[in-house]
Amino acid sequence: MQQFVSDYMEGAHPKILEKLLETNMEKTDGYGLDPYSESAREKIRKAVGAPEAEIYFLAGGTQTNETVISSVLRPYEGVIAADTGHVNTHEAGAIEHGGHKVLTIAGEEGRLSAEKIRLWAEKFLSDANHEHEVAPGMVYISHPTEYGTLYTKEELTKIREVCLHYGMKLFLDGARLGYGLAAEGTDLSLKDIAALTDVFYIGGTKVGALFGEAVVFPKPGLVPHFYTITKQHGAMLAKGRITGIQFDVLFTDGLYEKIGAHAVRLARRIREALLKKGYELYIDSPTNQIFPIVTKEKAKALEEQVQYSFMEELDDGRLVIRFCTSWATRPEDVEELVRLL
Amino acid sequence: MQQFVSDYMEGAHPKILEKLLETNMEKTDGYGLDPYSESAREKIRKAVGAPEAEIYFLAGGTQTNETVISSVLRPYEGVIAADTGHVNTHEAGAIEHGGHKVLTIAGEEGRLSAEKIRLWAEKFLSDANHEHEVAPGMVYISHPTEYGTLYTKEELTKIREVCLHYGMKLFLDGARLGYGLAAEGTDLSLKDIAALTDVFYIGGTKVGALFGEAVVFPKPGLVPHFYTITKQHGAMLAKGRITGIQFDVLFTDGLYEKIGAHAVRLARRIREALLKKGYELYIDSPTNQIFPIVTKEKAKALEEQVQYSFMEELDDGRLVIRFCTSWATRPEDVEELVRLL
Amino acid sequence: MQQFVSDYMEGAHPKILEKLLETNMEKTDGYGLDPYSESAREKIRKAVGAPEAEIYFLAGGTQTNETVISSVLRPYEGVIAADTGHVNTHEAGAIEHGGHKVLTIAGEEGRLSAEKIRLWAEKFLSDANHEHEVAPGMVYISHPTEYGTLYTKEELTKIREVCLHYGMKLFLDGARLGYGLAAEGTDLSLKDIAALTDVFYIGGTKVGALFGEAVVFPKPGLVPHFYTITKQHGAMLAKGRITGIQFDVLFTDGLYEKIGAHAVRLARRIREALLKKGYELYIDSPTNQIFPIVTKEKAKALEEQVQYSFMEELDDGRLVIRFCTSWATRPEDVEELVRLL
Amino acid sequence: MQQFVSDYMEGAHPKILEKLLETNMEKTDGYGLDPYSESAREKIRKAVGAPEAEIYFLAGGTQTNETVISSVLRPYEGVIAADTGHVNTHEAGAIEHGGHKVLTIAGEEGRLSAEKIRLWAEKFLSDANHEHEVAPGMVYISHPTEYGTLYTKEELTKIREVCLHYGMKLFLDGARLGYGLAAEGTDLSLKDIAALTDVFYIGGTKVGALFGEAVVFPKPGLVPHFYTITKQHGAMLAKGRITGIQFDVLFTDGLYEKIGAHAVRLARRIREALLKKGYELYIDSPTNQIFPIVTKEKAKALEEQVQYSFMEELDDGRLVIRFCTSWATRPEDVEELVRLL
Repeated sequence: MQQFVSDYMEGAHPKILEKLLETNMEKTDGYGLDPYSESAREKIRKAVGAPEAEIYFLAGGTQTNETVISSVLRPYEGVIAADTGHVNTHEAGAIEHGGHKVLTIAGEEGRLSAEKIRLWAEKFLSDANHEHEVAPGMVYISHPTEYGTLYTKEELTKIREVCLHYGMKLFLDGARLGYGLAAEGTDLSLKDIAALTDVFYIGGTKVGALFGEAVVFPKPGLVPHFYTITKQHGAMLAKGRITGIQFDVLFTDGLYEKIGAHAVRLARRIREALLKKGYELYIDSPTNQIFPIVTKEKAKALEEQVQYSFMEELDDGRLVIRFCTSWATRPEDVEELVRLL
Repeated sequence: MQQFVSDYMEGAHPKILEKLLETNMEKTDGYGLDPYSESAREKIRKAVGAPEAEIYFLAGGTQTNETVISSVLRPYEGVIAADTGHVNTHEAGAIEHGGHKVLTIAGEEGRLSAEKIRLWAEKFLSDANHEHEVAPGMVYISHPTEYGTLYTKEELTKIREVCLHYGMKLFLDGARLGYGLAAEGTDLSLKDIAALTDVFYIGGTKVGALFGEAVVFPKPGLVPHFYTITKQHGAMLAKGRITGIQFDVLFTDGLYEKIGAHAVRLARRIREALLKKGYELYIDSPTNQIFPIVTKEKAKALEEQVQYSFMEELDDGRLVIRFCTSWATRPEDVEELVRLL
Repeated sequence: MQQFVSDYMEGAHPKILEKLLETNMEKTDGYGLDPYSESAREKIRKAVGAPEAEIYFLAGGTQTNETVISSVLRPYEGVIAADTGHVNTHEAGAIEHGGHKVLTIAGEEGRLSAEKIRLWAEKFLSDANHEHEVAPGMVYISHPTEYGTLYTKEELTKIREVCLHYGMKLFLDGARLGYGLAAEGTDLSLKDIAALTDVFYIGGTKVGALFGEAVVFPKPGLVPHFYTITKQHGAMLAKGRITGIQFDVLFTDGLYEKIGAHAVRLARRIREALLKKGYELYIDSPTNQIFPIVTKEKAKALEEQVQYSFMEELDDGRLVIRFCTSWATRPEDVEELVRLL
Repeated sequence: MQQFVSDYMEGAHPKILEKLLETNMEKTDGYGLDPYSESAREKIRKAVGAPEAEIYFLAGGTQTNETVISSVLRPYEGVIAADTGHVNTHEAGAIEHGGHKVLTIAGEEGRLSAEKIRLWAEKFLSDANHEHEVAPGMVYISHPTEYGTLYTKEELTKIREVCLHYGMKLFLDGARLGYGLAAEGTDLSLKDIAALTDVFYIGGTKVGALFGEAVVFPKPGLVPHFYTITKQHGAMLAKGRITGIQFDVLFTDGLYEKIGAHAVRLARRIREALLKKGYELYIDSPTNQIFPIVTKEKAKALEEQVQYSFMEELDDGRLVIRFCTSWATRPEDVEELVRLL
């Protein structure tokens, strides 16, 4: 049975396990104060081009989104997000549990546009009763989005300008960032992201780690005592080095880039095969996620030999499904999938 | 340099890493729905003698305490704890951040007595204004406590009775449970704990795992949708099997017990050496933690060759320090420490 | 200058002030335990036909909505509301501040239909990932809605059935309830509302009181210790009798009904005049709110002699405005307004 | 039956009711934007000697304490208070419900000393693990305290200095401020309080109003958008003028001072009579609260003719009780009480 359900179905990239084994019996300080975590932070600072950046390692995406959003926002503020944004849909209300409203804008294939954000902010400000409403304090975007789409450098720059104009912070959820950076045709680099956002995170869980997300505040000082806040939110591991070691490995010898490139290359192969065979794509993502439209019969037939994600049923009865590659996908798995299509 | 600072300074027990390696390339469902997590749950159900128990794997102690306490309590309730309890002192206000007051009682070497809890509850109820006060909805105890002390089966039974009488839930924090179960002279078993509490957790982080705590509700149904609540609290890992595999290993062939026994045996060796050499013990813990009283000179001299924890300064200027053993402590390390004392 | 901006621009109905004066020097117990509050509760129990009802007096609408919603819901649950619902728009994020997501459904002139709620609940349950999403625990409706529309007894009965079927509680916000009960053609009585909802409130602030909302749980026991919860939410007045006295007066000799009838009668007069003069109504509300569409020129001209609320600008440039009557509106004010139209 | 239970047993000072009656039919803007609220704010600015002060009218003490504390503190901070402080004992956990820990220091007759606060802050900072603990972000004091004691100008100045030194805000709960300002021998004025605190409130509920507390930020800008925050916390009345009118009256022609002076004068009469008759005072408060120690027999005998508050039972079996005067206490009531003693 072939497996293309998601990018978090396996363990970790072998180099990570290797390093965990190699360092296992060393004794280090806890709570992220160990040399591996510090080394990882230093490597990330270089990779993002922000030598002063504050960096924290958290365990998962929902935890990271909630901790960042609730610590950046003031109590009367909410966060603007696409209606399809992960914080609005699949985090069991974590943002609201943390006290903040998710202010939704209809996304375009998962993306927000600077213009829509600007209109929202203008409408808010022009409402005579806006002091009785939730103020927009932050814009949340994901890159790649939940639909595998990407922002261009120009688009992100425009969103940044709107945020600056209206006094909102910009937060980029990079749970699958590695696959976005490796996407064909993207012009948005890690350094651009660090230059254009107030805070973002580099996803580890879905890009080769056992777990872990690296939160980056490119300019230090945005959230005083964020370290204590991670403790308060249950987001600080006693053996913090376990996350540190993983990111240290991911940012050594370009492993993070290699993982992204590998998965994207294999996804492109699937995409090409699909197009060649006449399949329609629901969304043409340049990342590790491919969204073909299939008939119910085809879906059923595939099911017996390959696992995939079901996305939605179209009005004409056909189904949108998703194939997802990862660092662990092998070329031969992809060729077998292509054969089955 | 010898290392006796704490029991979370290393990686994981080799058998855990071995299993992570062995299973690394397998593809399984996420979010704890994999066969390893299920296997671990089944083994724990047997070990605690509660075949219906609901079991969830969370990442760390503060996260677990906060998620359990805030989901068991109703909004108007608080949790009774010893003033020295971890939830009251070293969790950065996580319990209050979750909306609940920690109602403190002066602990006796870290422990609460049934009688003190009863008096507290009586005083609360007899206060004519108690509807303007925080109602005690739960009793939190740690076993071993933060001072390495233990409850006897009789003591826990009495606390249980008080809880039942006053309608309070009983929650046992077992961050170091393995060392408590292995302590010399203890008569409190894992099955007793499951029989006498409403919810408890079996610590992994400090007992051989990379991270992870197993929350056990011996009787199912106490907290509906606890699964979703762990998601909401950022306590659910996408690769949930990483925690599942660790507990599966810990509960295979008695590894959890062996780890506890190993650490306690070495701690006893340190204790005996200390007593023989005329040191006084601040608290005589039967667990993996030993609390000698040393002069400042001795403390300073030791510092150059061994790392330990500083606990507090006594009125006479002497210091209470702590030596902590773990699964990773080697007999030769202990002999070297004994030599240095 | 005529005043038709809203129904909370004046003080209180004279009978209320009279009673406050008459009882002013009496000394009574605080915190709602006085005989006036008890008398008011008893009268309301009779009026709603629920002799066992639990009744609490709170100060304002946002406070009431937040306290009720957050105490009825479990942490993992959210509240379904129309997108135009007060809890979603004009409460400064109070519901989210209390930890819960507002799950919005597009309203129809402010109303929710049983069918839309059912579809929402079905879609939620059929989503394989719904345990990662906010569960719908309650349906919030306002009656009259924010657009002055009403539910029929049949509609409310159907909503009730959907709620029962999916295990959701039904909460009715009656901030302007008096005007809804007095509306022409309505077949929904106070007793129906008590029979069909789990909790609702009878608005005082907008129906003749200085402030105050009476929360009614028709069947007791839904929220244990709601009294303490009101204290915790800052919703309990030391001189609780001030609210009790107001509701005692409102529910004496049918004053609440009379206030509603008076305001609605005058609003009908405005409506008829508008229609006669050829104005179009944006929404044809049978309550104390009238929503004509006017040209910008007319709006400007009116502004100099009458205060009204601005609602929105239509695509054709015309404006929707609102005239609102209250217990304090005088027939001669209305005639003057009619003259100005 | 004489009534000396508390100072919130009656309605409002007659002048307040008079003004409510007089203005009842006027139509004004809602939500505190009316001319009466603005007039009250202006008068209070003058009275406290802070022409730039931001002033907000809230409804009650618990609501005010919670709203102020949670909006001034950052998420990782807690509030230092005497263990007997109202926020720690009688607010049903409102502060913790708002997310913040109350960090208690043993009070001295209800008071905190600068030295104890300093020691607490020093101990916190010198703890190597303090980043895992709740940081002290604010000091909460009440004046008069819950035991009727007062701070001197020197004491408050020292507390202020400690707060400045450790970066903590100073918040003074003035629920009974009027009686503190009027106390015999006090040297602390309203202007001193405004000069020495970051935020305080002037109690209305217990000093002649139906309800209401005036929050004063002597220097504007401490909490951006506090107005919206009051809405979010359910602390904003639609008919905000009702509170505004009350404070406008209280701060016209020195009424607030007169009320304080009247109640204190009568309390002094009770105190003198008690001392003359040989009663012991548990705490010798110079305010409107008197705390005699009585035998159980005497307490019982009194009960039949006078209502008072029970405070606590002493080890010798005698009882501490409280007599409380208010604006509404008449000299003849006091003489009758004296006769009964």
